[in-house]
Amino acid sequence: MDITKTHLSGETRTEHDLLGYREIPVEYYFGIQTMRAMENFHISRVRLHFFPDLIKGLAIVKEAAAKANKDLGVLDPVIADAIVAACKDVKHGLFREHFVVDMVQGGAGTSTNMNANEVIANRALEVMGYERGQYKYCHPNNHVNLSQSTNDAYPTAVKIALTFSNRRLIKAVEELVDAFRAKGVDFKDVIKMGRTQLQDAVPMTLGQEFEAYAANLAEEVDRLQTNVNLFLEVNMGATAIGTGINSDPDYTPLCVGYLNEITKLPFKAAENMIEATNDTGAFVIYSSAVKRLAVKLSKICNDLRLLSSGPRTGFNEINLPPMQPGSTIMPGKVNPVIPEVVNQVAFKVFGNDLVVTFAAEAGQLELNVMEPIIVHSLFESIEMLINAMNTLRTKCVVGITANVEHLRNMVYNSIGLVTALNPYLGYEISTELAATALETGKGIYDLVLEKNLMPKEELDNILKPENMVKPRKFNLK
Amino acid sequence: MDITKTHLSGETRTEHDLLGYREIPVEYYFGIQTMRAMENFHISRVRLHFFPDLIKGLAIVKEAAAKANKDLGVLDPVIADAIVAACKDVKHGLFREHFVVDMVQGGAGTSTNMNANEVIANRALEVMGYERGQYKYCHPNNHVNLSQSTNDAYPTAVKIALTFSNRRLIKAVEELVDAFRAKGVDFKDVIKMGRTQLQDAVPMTLGQEFEAYAANLAEEVDRLQTNVNLFLEVNMGATAIGTGINSDPDYTPLCVGYLNEITKLPFKAAENMIEATNDTGAFVIYSSAVKRLAVKLSKICNDLRLLSSGPRTGFNEINLPPMQPGSTIMPGKVNPVIPEVVNQVAFKVFGNDLVVTFAAEAGQLELNVMEPIIVHSLFESIEMLINAMNTLRTKCVVGITANVEHLRNMVYNSIGLVTALNPYLGYEISTELAATALETGKGIYDLVLEKNLMPKEELDNILKPENMVKPRKFNLK
Amino acid sequence: MDITKTHLSGETRTEHDLLGYREIPVEYYFGIQTMRAMENFHISRVRLHFFPDLIKGLAIVKEAAAKANKDLGVLDPVIADAIVAACKDVKHGLFREHFVVDMVQGGAGTSTNMNANEVIANRALEVMGYERGQYKYCHPNNHVNLSQSTNDAYPTAVKIALTFSNRRLIKAVEELVDAFRAKGVDFKDVIKMGRTQLQDAVPMTLGQEFEAYAANLAEEVDRLQTNVNLFLEVNMGATAIGTGINSDPDYTPLCVGYLNEITKLPFKAAENMIEATNDTGAFVIYSSAVKRLAVKLSKICNDLRLLSSGPRTGFNEINLPPMQPGSTIMPGKVNPVIPEVVNQVAFKVFGNDLVVTFAAEAGQLELNVMEPIIVHSLFESIEMLINAMNTLRTKCVVGITANVEHLRNMVYNSIGLVTALNPYLGYEISTELAATALETGKGIYDLVLEKNLMPKEELDNILKPENMVKPRKFNLK
Amino acid sequence: MDITKTHLSGETRTEHDLLGYREIPVEYYFGIQTMRAMENFHISRVRLHFFPDLIKGLAIVKEAAAKANKDLGVLDPVIADAIVAACKDVKHGLFREHFVVDMVQGGAGTSTNMNANEVIANRALEVMGYERGQYKYCHPNNHVNLSQSTNDAYPTAVKIALTFSNRRLIKAVEELVDAFRAKGVDFKDVIKMGRTQLQDAVPMTLGQEFEAYAANLAEEVDRLQTNVNLFLEVNMGATAIGTGINSDPDYTPLCVGYLNEITKLPFKAAENMIEATNDTGAFVIYSSAVKRLAVKLSKICNDLRLLSSGPRTGFNEINLPPMQPGSTIMPGKVNPVIPEVVNQVAFKVFGNDLVVTFAAEAGQLELNVMEPIIVHSLFESIEMLINAMNTLRTKCVVGITANVEHLRNMVYNSIGLVTALNPYLGYEISTELAATALETGKGIYDLVLEKNLMPKEELDNILKPENMVKPRKFNLK
Repeated sequence: MDITKTHLSGETRTEHDLLGYREIPVEYYFGIQTMRAMENFHISRVRLHFFPDLIKGLAIVKEAAAKANKDLGVLDPVIADAIVAACKDVKHGLFREHFVVDMVQGGAGTSTNMNANEVIANRALEVMGYERGQYKYCHPNNHVNLSQSTNDAYPTAVKIALTFSNRRLIKAVEELVDAFRAKGVDFKDVIKMGRTQLQDAVPMTLGQEFEAYAANLAEEVDRLQTNVNLFLEVNMGATAIGTGINSDPDYTPLCVGYLNEITKLPFKAAENMIEATNDTGAFVIYSSAVKRLAVKLSKICNDLRLLSSGPRTGFNEINLPPMQPGSTIMPGKVNPVIPEVVNQVAFKVFGNDLVVTFAAEAGQLELNVMEPIIVHSLFESIEMLINAMNTLRTKCVVGITANVEHLRNMVYNSIGLVTALNPYLGYEISTELAATALETGKGIYDLVLEKNLMPKEELDNILKPENMVKPRKFNLK
Repeated sequence: MDITKTHLSGETRTEHDLLGYREIPVEYYFGIQTMRAMENFHISRVRLHFFPDLIKGLAIVKEAAAKANKDLGVLDPVIADAIVAACKDVKHGLFREHFVVDMVQGGAGTSTNMNANEVIANRALEVMGYERGQYKYCHPNNHVNLSQSTNDAYPTAVKIALTFSNRRLIKAVEELVDAFRAKGVDFKDVIKMGRTQLQDAVPMTLGQEFEAYAANLAEEVDRLQTNVNLFLEVNMGATAIGTGINSDPDYTPLCVGYLNEITKLPFKAAENMIEATNDTGAFVIYSSAVKRLAVKLSKICNDLRLLSSGPRTGFNEINLPPMQPGSTIMPGKVNPVIPEVVNQVAFKVFGNDLVVTFAAEAGQLELNVMEPIIVHSLFESIEMLINAMNTLRTKCVVGITANVEHLRNMVYNSIGLVTALNPYLGYEISTELAATALETGKGIYDLVLEKNLMPKEELDNILKPENMVKPRKFNLK
Repeated sequence: MDITKTHLSGETRTEHDLLGYREIPVEYYFGIQTMRAMENFHISRVRLHFFPDLIKGLAIVKEAAAKANKDLGVLDPVIADAIVAACKDVKHGLFREHFVVDMVQGGAGTSTNMNANEVIANRALEVMGYERGQYKYCHPNNHVNLSQSTNDAYPTAVKIALTFSNRRLIKAVEELVDAFRAKGVDFKDVIKMGRTQLQDAVPMTLGQEFEAYAANLAEEVDRLQTNVNLFLEVNMGATAIGTGINSDPDYTPLCVGYLNEITKLPFKAAENMIEATNDTGAFVIYSSAVKRLAVKLSKICNDLRLLSSGPRTGFNEINLPPMQPGSTIMPGKVNPVIPEVVNQVAFKVFGNDLVVTFAAEAGQLELNVMEPIIVHSLFESIEMLINAMNTLRTKCVVGITANVEHLRNMVYNSIGLVTALNPYLGYEISTELAATALETGKGIYDLVLEKNLMPKEELDNILKPENMVKPRKFNLK
Repeated sequence: MDITKTHLSGETRTEHDLLGYREIPVEYYFGIQTMRAMENFHISRVRLHFFPDLIKGLAIVKEAAAKANKDLGVLDPVIADAIVAACKDVKHGLFREHFVVDMVQGGAGTSTNMNANEVIANRALEVMGYERGQYKYCHPNNHVNLSQSTNDAYPTAVKIALTFSNRRLIKAVEELVDAFRAKGVDFKDVIKMGRTQLQDAVPMTLGQEFEAYAANLAEEVDRLQTNVNLFLEVNMGATAIGTGINSDPDYTPLCVGYLNEITKLPFKAAENMIEATNDTGAFVIYSSAVKRLAVKLSKICNDLRLLSSGPRTGFNEINLPPMQPGSTIMPGKVNPVIPEVVNQVAFKVFGNDLVVTFAAEAGQLELNVMEPIIVHSLFESIEMLINAMNTLRTKCVVGITANVEHLRNMVYNSIGLVTALNPYLGYEISTELAATALETGKGIYDLVLEKNLMPKEELDNILKPENMVKPRKFNLK
């Protein structure tokens, strides 16, 4: 829901900032700076509340900072406790519709940070029994944002949020791996021809093919986890540029300690705060890991579309479950719409990875002001991939069936079968056999018998599926 | 507004398709295939109604097809007229919230096409006095989609829509050009140093700089128009793969004629319908033109940020209007947030252009099934650029002021001034002057007089702004 | 050949510039600034002589400038004539191995410009009867580069060169189009199944497929030409930043006139020289046109690989000529190596287009210093595409053969055939037929006769290839 | 040197393969299949010998395979030993000019593999006392390539080669880090203004800035090492598609054992050989790590260009060593040519990373045939980055000097100084001070004293550099 599109009472409160005064509808938990941001940045129409993990990340940062400030004695305990209570409400999903700023914004995330500061301040005011807008009792800047600048609070919130989103991403990968693995078991005895360069190669099982998809994607869990761990380095206490000007030397360890207490994650302060404040390297490489997952999904979906091509003039190896009528003009046509949409999501992820590269390269001196588009791109990619993988699993993979007999026939009609005979007949005779088969249209099996090159029993033994799909010791004559 | 999130009565009608039966809430103008699409493609959360021009394009295609079918005698005139009436309603913006399918979808646009077919059929039924769902009187496929397939109707609707969106894009470019041009006039007498490779070069006026921005962007109107014109080639009548199977040879010219009548644009049928049905080249190059605009905007915004850097330790040539408080920790700081957001939009456009490249390359044989992500990316880029340019114009460019005196001082303190003396003093003496100036910190002007290299009057004449910022005839000794 | 790797006499001449003195081997036509450039920029190992068109472009610029300078009376006619003679030698391919600077360089092309200035100066000295290095008689800067700066001479030379390279690119496109078109004629009666979404769709001819490839690529001639024409706008006379400081107002028209005389092309001076000097928009959109060509080639090569997949377990529609043994382990395997290499070239072109985007966006204020990498990327893409297209044509397309009978059988065994019967039998019966065929493995043709749905004669008439592959009037009952 | 361009005797030997016979100049160590490859793939003109590490990787694979084959008793010990000897010669750099195939090729690396097989076979023949071409004694396929296919030998050789190249890349990073770190020490007491969003922020030291560059790049050592380690998983023994058809189950462990013995690296066999044979994920993420390094280098070079902008109208904080005359028209101008070329290399790396993405996504079924362009792109990026970093270090970073006094003046004239007073004067007074300073052009320091806001001694203490550039405890009143 979008609070800015709901019915309002018409009542307002007056707020002011450095640039002047504004009337704010009393229903809004956000205030003047969020209002300005909405006016300044009507850009993408994708608002902060599209990505609840990011709201949660912001609330956690504000909670940890409030606790650290309380400990240091720079924040009144009553206010600190109210802020903490407000942050907990926000973490639990309350007031989500009040996080309204456009994800794409100038100012290096100031508007996102202020949206959080304002909502939390107004909620804290309520907690303390005041009315929204009575900022002298709890001010968005002076209290909620105390000891912080956007330049440390915003990237830290983003990093926390990405660890959460990454968990859901990994879960979607793991469930998809399981689905492919189960098909690998289902199809473990289904013999088929493998193909290299789209040309008939040598036999394998369909189970091996699906198990390879599972193995291929399973690696991504480790890649995502390794790379998301780079987000565990945060710069709370950096203040404006990482020198920590105007901050207490004890603030950073206190604040990071609270982050870890709240998230149960091992965040740590960056060793070089100046570097940490202007660097976006962790986003670059994490985006790359997300891209790698998309590359693999796209390749697998290309395969699924190839393997299910047909029914009569394609490979016709497998059947994808029909999800919608395929054509209004061609009766009976059903299309591989689910892999197709996954391919497209992968392309979007590739595009977003490029956005991250451009934005990261554009950092200047003590800050990278392009972080908001990095953030937007990463969250968009993650959410689309989660949706795509869940869709692929539930609406496609689990329902795949094999055309077992057709697959077996293709093996035994293939010329590639000759490769299995190579160690027994020699490369020269094998090549000749292949040429004859190609020319006459006959099968290798029949030709071997016809030419008396091998006893039928021995031939059958060599061509047993279980003997063709893995390494084996030879007893060559 | 999103119809799928509003309150429903609970009443339903029953619909069926090749895959089975479904209950559809009576409030919905869309039907079973749209319902399936929403379930199959919960991917990007960006729905068809985000892009009203595309809905308009779909309505125009359906209207033109209905009229052609009526003329050919294959569609009952009563039904045809009702469809036309429904299309007009849709064109005028009615039922927008019933265009609900995800922009990112498998099936090459079938879901988008069917969403339009269903809404228009149900509206036509109302027009004829029937109830929604009484498809025997007007069927989404048999009547609204008659003589079409998704493979011709969808890309044609997209192309029509893009010509509309492009007009708004061009308008935003033109208005921004005017704003820069106006500043060019305002600043026409403001002398400043030009810079190459970020090093002091030779004098120019700030007016020349802003006029160059105007000239630079003005070229984009022509580029966009030239490239959007490639969309005027459409493939209505191609049916499934461009062979026009099951279509009447007269259908294509009739249908295209109606497109032109409705849009007042000179669409024409592709010469090679098979090629036109699988090719996405027009999208590729139009996307490139959009990218080129973004490249230029990004470069200009980088410049604006450089020129306004400071106030004390940067170039400090111009002042951007302050849009929001810049920092909670640094009193008085105001940041160039508007150019910053434009840079980020440009990066997104670059990413989207890459998406288009990937999708276009992935076409196979008689169709490119990846068109929906192309479409999504193009419309997203266009809308974001329009927003970004309007924001840049109204919230930044029109309010820019120049630090005239500081600019003039920089010219007369610069070493680059020596270049203007080069033709009079010779390269050797000029180089020596430059070296002395750099070493001593003195100005070129003072050094020339100090060393008696030229009478003051002549020197003043050479260094008149109007003499330094354009070619001129020399009267060399 | 690389002059820097050949045997030298050991004799040297001494040269100096602003930074000091250097010994230059007497054999070298280039001088001290080129030497410095080779030391500063040992980066890509791709040298200027890799791209002869660019050397030619440089010579033409220097020739035109010398002639204009002579006319204006600022260059001694004897020197001017010697420079012109030297430029003609260089245009004819002499001294190519002396163009040695790395294509990837800082300084916005200064090193490339100086390499040309030095070689031409030394050649002009020879023409006049002096020795190489006697620069007082003809100086690389004072005479060869007179009235120019790198910022106008370099981009102008590049633009001239690209118009030449583009001609060869277009020639390669046209020859490839002809090859596809010839195959279109060869295969005009070969009936086959078209496929959408890799699923059997409706019949077409293989000739239509190849003719569509021809039509698809033929469009690129126009795209390339339209976009290369943007290079006809040049900035000779802009000098440092486009203000034309220290230049004669008559120089620009004179110089451009000579460019046109030499090249027989209609170059014209930019209207806004400041804009023209910092803008790289023409490179961006030309690169996009090159990319579009690559997108299409890649799609077509993907198709060729699909269509030739097999021989037994793939589509097996066409045979590509075997170019090399395919496998050392799989006897008789032949792979589609030529289309494969074309795909890879396309990917490289996509990468290079991105390089151009990055470089264009990185322009700052009065100059884009990243032009050298733009230039390198464009020439690399063009040369690789020319090689790839010529290879594709001569080693693949012209030798393609069709498996005519297999193709025909696939049509008549296909379920997609039912689409052609749709207008006669109706959608419901057709769908039922399709389902029965899919279930039983029987053919549509046999099922229609078996079920007595239509007389054999009528059925045969409908299913005549010529009746299925284009629109036709129906005489429906 | 390029053997194909040197003088030949005219004598030839006759060789044949499946496609026919060819005369081969006797000087060539390569044979008929390499000859065919040179004809088929005249594409990029970048040949195998451009990348010596790759030749070394191929030799190591062939050596390990020969040793394993000898142990298994499938290769005559005499031949095996001769192959091993030949491989050692190649590893040591002999015959490099005989590695001539184009890096960009179809066939999934078959041509590269055969080039190695042929050179090694002919060298082994010499070792055994035979003549080149007497393949019955040592055959490129039957002996050198024994138990291998291109599909395992080629990617394994590439992975070995990349571990070598990566070492040199890391060395270049480390040396550059040291250079920045040394400057960090040099400049540790140089106070300057930090900037965020290009606006004056708060003080820092120039030493902190350079130390941050060092810290930023130092992280890349770990990133490169972590990601290159993914290449330690190899698929030797996979044969055609990973099923290991026709291979001995003991071959894989033996062969990998020898790889480790030769390289002293812990390679291991992939758990899932089918997955390992078609997957290119390791290349994707390693390429991303290389890209991340390029992103950081580009950002740093952008900073160096900003900081050295001027001398009079820019930031003028640091001076880069002059490397070449900057302009022929502007006396005394020196440009930041070294950082400029590094930026351009970074852009090329970004392009190459995109090439890798496209190629990886294009894998199909049991093989990714696009590996050669991946390989070309990775080696090109690595070599260009090594060159760029060494150039940046030796020709720029080590010679950078600071304009200490100017930097200090900028701090004390800055309005950002007010931030340091914020905790003492309060936000309101500080904001007012900032506004007054901006309006009047006066300095904060003077205004504080003028307005009697603080005793001079206290003010001086607060504004001591060492008190402004790190966190500190406050004793607030």
